[in-house]
Amino acid sequence: MTTPSNDSSPLVGILMGSDSDFDIMKEAASVFDEFNIPYEVSVISAHRTPKELERYATNAKDNGLKVIIAGAGGAAHLPGVTAALTVLPVIGVPIFSKKLNGQDSLYSIVQMPAGIPVATVGIDNARNGALMAVQILALTDPSIMSSLEGFRTKLAEASRMKNRKVQERLNAIS
Amino acid sequence: MTTPSNDSSPLVGILMGSDSDFDIMKEAASVFDEFNIPYEVSVISAHRTPKELERYATNAKDNGLKVIIAGAGGAAHLPGVTAALTVLPVIGVPIFSKKLNGQDSLYSIVQMPAGIPVATVGIDNARNGALMAVQILALTDPSIMSSLEGFRTKLAEASRMKNRKVQERLNAIS
Amino acid sequence: MTTPSNDSSPLVGILMGSDSDFDIMKEAASVFDEFNIPYEVSVISAHRTPKELERYATNAKDNGLKVIIAGAGGAAHLPGVTAALTVLPVIGVPIFSKKLNGQDSLYSIVQMPAGIPVATVGIDNARNGALMAVQILALTDPSIMSSLEGFRTKLAEASRMKNRKVQERLNAIS
Amino acid sequence: MTTPSNDSSPLVGILMGSDSDFDIMKEAASVFDEFNIPYEVSVISAHRTPKELERYATNAKDNGLKVIIAGAGGAAHLPGVTAALTVLPVIGVPIFSKKLNGQDSLYSIVQMPAGIPVATVGIDNARNGALMAVQILALTDPSIMSSLEGFRTKLAEASRMKNRKVQERLNAIS
Amino acid sequence: MTTPSNDSSPLVGILMGSDSDFDIMKEAASVFDEFNIPYEVSVISAHRTPKELERYATNAKDNGLKVIIAGAGGAAHLPGVTAALTVLPVIGVPIFSKKLNGQDSLYSIVQMPAGIPVATVGIDNARNGALMAVQILALTDPSIMSSLEGFRTKLAEASRMKNRKVQERLNAIS
Amino acid sequence: MTTPSNDSSPLVGILMGSDSDFDIMKEAASVFDEFNIPYEVSVISAHRTPKELERYATNAKDNGLKVIIAGAGGAAHLPGVTAALTVLPVIGVPIFSKKLNGQDSLYSIVQMPAGIPVATVGIDNARNGALMAVQILALTDPSIMSSLEGFRTKLAEASRMKNRKVQERLNAIS
Amino acid sequence: MTTPSNDSSPLVGILMGSDSDFDIMKEAASVFDEFNIPYEVSVISAHRTPKELERYATNAKDNGLKVIIAGAGGAAHLPGVTAALTVLPVIGVPIFSKKLNGQDSLYSIVQMPAGIPVATVGIDNARNGALMAVQILALTDPSIMSSLEGFRTKLAEASRMKNRKVQERLNAIS
Amino acid sequence: MTTPSNDSSPLVGILMGSDSDFDIMKEAASVFDEFNIPYEVSVISAHRTPKELERYATNAKDNGLKVIIAGAGGAAHLPGVTAALTVLPVIGVPIFSKKLNGQDSLYSIVQMPAGIPVATVGIDNARNGALMAVQILALTDPSIMSSLEGFRTKLAEASRMKNRKVQERLNAIS
Repeated sequence: MTTPSNDSSPLVGILMGSDSDFDIMKEAASVFDEFNIPYEVSVISAHRTPKELERYATNAKDNGLKVIIAGAGGAAHLPGVTAALTVLPVIGVPIFSKKLNGQDSLYSIVQMPAGIPVATVGIDNARNGALMAVQILALTDPSIMSSLEGFRTKLAEASRMKNRKVQERLNAIS
Repeated sequence: MTTPSNDSSPLVGILMGSDSDFDIMKEAASVFDEFNIPYEVSVISAHRTPKELERYATNAKDNGLKVIIAGAGGAAHLPGVTAALTVLPVIGVPIFSKKLNGQDSLYSIVQMPAGIPVATVGIDNARNGALMAVQILALTDPSIMSSLEGFRTKLAEASRMKNRKVQERLNAIS
Repeated sequence: MTTPSNDSSPLVGILMGSDSDFDIMKEAASVFDEFNIPYEVSVISAHRTPKELERYATNAKDNGLKVIIAGAGGAAHLPGVTAALTVLPVIGVPIFSKKLNGQDSLYSIVQMPAGIPVATVGIDNARNGALMAVQILALTDPSIMSSLEGFRTKLAEASRMKNRKVQERLNAIS
Repeated sequence: MTTPSNDSSPLVGILMGSDSDFDIMKEAASVFDEFNIPYEVSVISAHRTPKELERYATNAKDNGLKVIIAGAGGAAHLPGVTAALTVLPVIGVPIFSKKLNGQDSLYSIVQMPAGIPVATVGIDNARNGALMAVQILALTDPSIMSSLEGFRTKLAEASRMKNRKVQERLNAIS
Repeated sequence: MTTPSNDSSPLVGILMGSDSDFDIMKEAASVFDEFNIPYEVSVISAHRTPKELERYATNAKDNGLKVIIAGAGGAAHLPGVTAALTVLPVIGVPIFSKKLNGQDSLYSIVQMPAGIPVATVGIDNARNGALMAVQILALTDPSIMSSLEGFRTKLAEASRMKNRKVQERLNAIS
Repeated sequence: MTTPSNDSSPLVGILMGSDSDFDIMKEAASVFDEFNIPYEVSVISAHRTPKELERYATNAKDNGLKVIIAGAGGAAHLPGVTAALTVLPVIGVPIFSKKLNGQDSLYSIVQMPAGIPVATVGIDNARNGALMAVQILALTDPSIMSSLEGFRTKLAEASRMKNRKVQERLNAIS
Repeated sequence: MTTPSNDSSPLVGILMGSDSDFDIMKEAASVFDEFNIPYEVSVISAHRTPKELERYATNAKDNGLKVIIAGAGGAAHLPGVTAALTVLPVIGVPIFSKKLNGQDSLYSIVQMPAGIPVATVGIDNARNGALMAVQILALTDPSIMSSLEGFRTKLAEASRMKNRKVQERLNAIS
Repeated sequence: MTTPSNDSSPLVGILMGSDSDFDIMKEAASVFDEFNIPYEVSVISAHRTPKELERYATNAKDNGLKVIIAGAGGAAHLPGVTAALTVLPVIGVPIFSKKLNGQDSLYSIVQMPAGIPVATVGIDNARNGALMAVQILALTDPSIMSSLEGFRTKLAEASRMKNRKVQERLNAIS
């Protein structure tokens, strides 16, 4: 159902219930591109193609995946149903909809019953979903850990750069 | 997995994710007892026993069920996952939890994606879930329709009785 | 007050409180067109034309309707008032307004008192309202049931198509 | 359906959907007792006895009522449906329920469509509902106006008394 | 501070905290124009000009006003502070802001403490605020009452017209 | 209206709308006792005794107060109305009520219009309200500053003590 | 890390977590320009540059700052973490995001634990954040106090001007 | 600051801001006891002992920890501040408080800015927080993976047992 994103066998599966979620979820893919971590992307709906989802989630571990990131909106069942079918860590990304401001997506993902957790990140924050996957993979891959530490350093530097820009804007005003 | 509630083959399946929901969901059962409609009750978890749920929902129609009522709380996936696996009408009962006042249960059930509806009733209102099932069954069963009309008459009469009681309380005060 | 949508006697009544709800509620009509189910559409306000509503709802069953779908926003009384006046299943569609994000519409429809249920679907999800009506009608009409099963198959196929499109977009990027 | 609360013809109608709302709504009655304003109390349900409600509201003005106060909880339709059937001012009292913290009751009452207003007061604040009725009646009844001004004076004095009590508590502590 | 809207002495005072609320509150003015009821409009801020507000509210009754309509947003104190300073009925109109969807405005107006009610209408629904004032004034002015009954008839007729338009749109489609 | 809490002239005024708020607001008083800062406590209602409030707030600065802490619940106008009448910093404490979980109190206090700020602390967190006053007073009083630094040290030590207690509980269990 | 805004040593530090908050937070800066109070502006992230934040906050008092204003959105930790590291008053400005309407920013800032207060102002209301700082500084600087009283007078006058404009718009219409 | 829970070096750090969170967070500890995974428990406050937290989080990886679970309520900064100071996966557990029903805790934890994720679980669901840690550790420890699969089997069996109990209760009733 899915095409590996490069020659290596994918370590992360990115799931979304509909291609309308792609604009958000591709942010996760671009994180894995930055970290050079092989991944696959699939549109599978917990409601429209439940049996594909069962097959995907049940086989995910044997297929070599280590982490699954699932984005969904509204009655966002995709992350939770996936988590019920695999022992891999499942990270949930609530997708924003103007209807209830993302509250429905967030609550439907995070409030899982005891026994089957979903690691939930912020609304539309697919980037953080991917970074959590990177942090998990880094635990046993020194090369990813090293990239991750570099990433944090660049994040801090970008923040310092923003500070300098604001100083310039202030100087320009006064 | 479930025991028919009487000798007839059940027309309605009452589902709940945990036996902690039984105190609410038994209200649905008692409606079917009032209307003499055969039903069955099952505890099946969308998260802890997903394959039982798949089997149950996939076979529900062939097993003679006409309607399914599913109660769930928190990230309440049970009604939606069931609805994805059957063409029978699925009625969802959001179960209250003090954590988010039932908002999480309600949103997780009602905000289904286009294509797979869940007919949602009020928070903890299993009684209304069952009455919706009765109204659906009454469409093709004149005896149930007749009972339903009688029920509405009694409902009105009970309301009038409450009015008389309040008058008495007022007279007692003044 | 309403014109049958085709030569057959309508089985479903689509109600809305104002013609401003038509852009949402016509999605319900188009579902019935897809399924070739006769329906009628009416603008009747619970607040501005309460007596028309009483007449409509009280006579709905005798007029041959099987299900009523009512869309309303804000203090959305239309579905509940209709449900109080008929034993037919009433499906409520909460209409979104930016004021309270649809919360007011949803709560006003779903939180009905015990005795008079409204089968509520997601905010602005008139399509799901209609599909719930189809699922109810399919219980006793094998031809609708067969269309419904075909619809579910197409829904799954459309989801798979979306997956293929996302793979193409990914391949195009990389 | 209702018994006048004293020999004079009632000026205010207090409505509630169920006798379970009586403990809140009797606060309204006690305000009218304080102000010696004749009133009547009725349990009429918008959902269980809609035709009684229609009769009541349609005839309210001819029966001599000037103001109606209606308390309701959940999908609280009673005030709005009443308002649709009379040109008298209708005051709505949202009744608290732990389910959604009174949000459902409040939104269902206050968010009426343009054309049919309900004058809404705070959750469970039947006392304020009654005082708004008193303020309306005072506009044309100098004796009520005089009582109302006295009431405000006593309210201020009670507030000053609370201040003195707090000073005493503080002195007792220190 | 304010200019009478026509030669007669104003019966209604329309208040707003800022001229940014004028686009909403002028809907109230246009209702009084329709009903030929004299009114005045004032921008007075509970926070920026509290003493003007005190003077205005304290004198409102002696100046011949019968009802005050106050619109405010955010921590919307204007209606409540006005209500504390007059025994006239004060009608509150919560003004929408995207920040908290109007929830802040609504709660700040409707949740008044026992003793000092504000008659609250829907968010941005200045039209309903004015109509509530009309309904109050109609209690003692047969000419306004007659206009009000005519208004309700026209409201119903407009609703029927909308129904006819929707039928035409449906016929045009099919 | 208020009694100085000790011989010195009060630097802080603690206001509350009703003596029912005293159990929360006395936490503020006890902070000032700890820091040996003179204060006064008053029950003054923005709605029931608006003129006392005007007098109090208008004269607060001349009476030697430096900061005012005002606690209020529901449509909590007390802090905002006070802030409109003085240039002293006003700290608002939203008082919890089960009705809307404190949301109404919080929004009514914090969402002030531009020009008249209220420094809002957490729901029922009168202790933090008082500590903010201490931090303001410490800016120009080295003895208070020194006490404040000591307070922070003790706060950290209390936190470390809690850590030790938890270790003991864990050791007791295992 | 930051540039003094003019030759005097800054009395107020304006902090923001990202330069995307600058459009809101510059409103605070413009208040200090109006009042001729020296300030500095810094972009420091509680999450991306936590050590810079620690250094900044720990040294703020010794560097001569009297008040810190921190704006942040989402899981808005910046004000609270700053407050934990200094005894200076910290004023928090919740930055709006459409995701949860600013609720997340507001709750993350205002609901601090007992011991470490943040003085919170309205969502996006950096102007009020700055004015609270001005009110604090005015307590010990008669020149700022005098400017503040002038500001309040101009605020009232601007409100009166708005009233006149509305009268003109009304006259133009009628 | 913390005592290893057994002889092995801890793999997981359980953090909480106050010992009042212990009753919830000990559920996490008991999961690690079940899985025989060494852990440590610490009370460290982001606000009261920020420097201890910095030391703890900065050294966590070098001290051999693999995952940190942090529980916090209100303006729940502990998980996010910890996540900013370590590249280890940080799992956040929002602690319920009646004040805002846990919404404040949830939003303060989950809505982290891009770059620094916190893996959030349900309100008070420390058990799921621990299970997510187990799922992460199982990725590279076959013995934990085997226990995890056994745990899932037992979870399903417990659910089936609940079903049998409900059947018995039903049989007992009928």
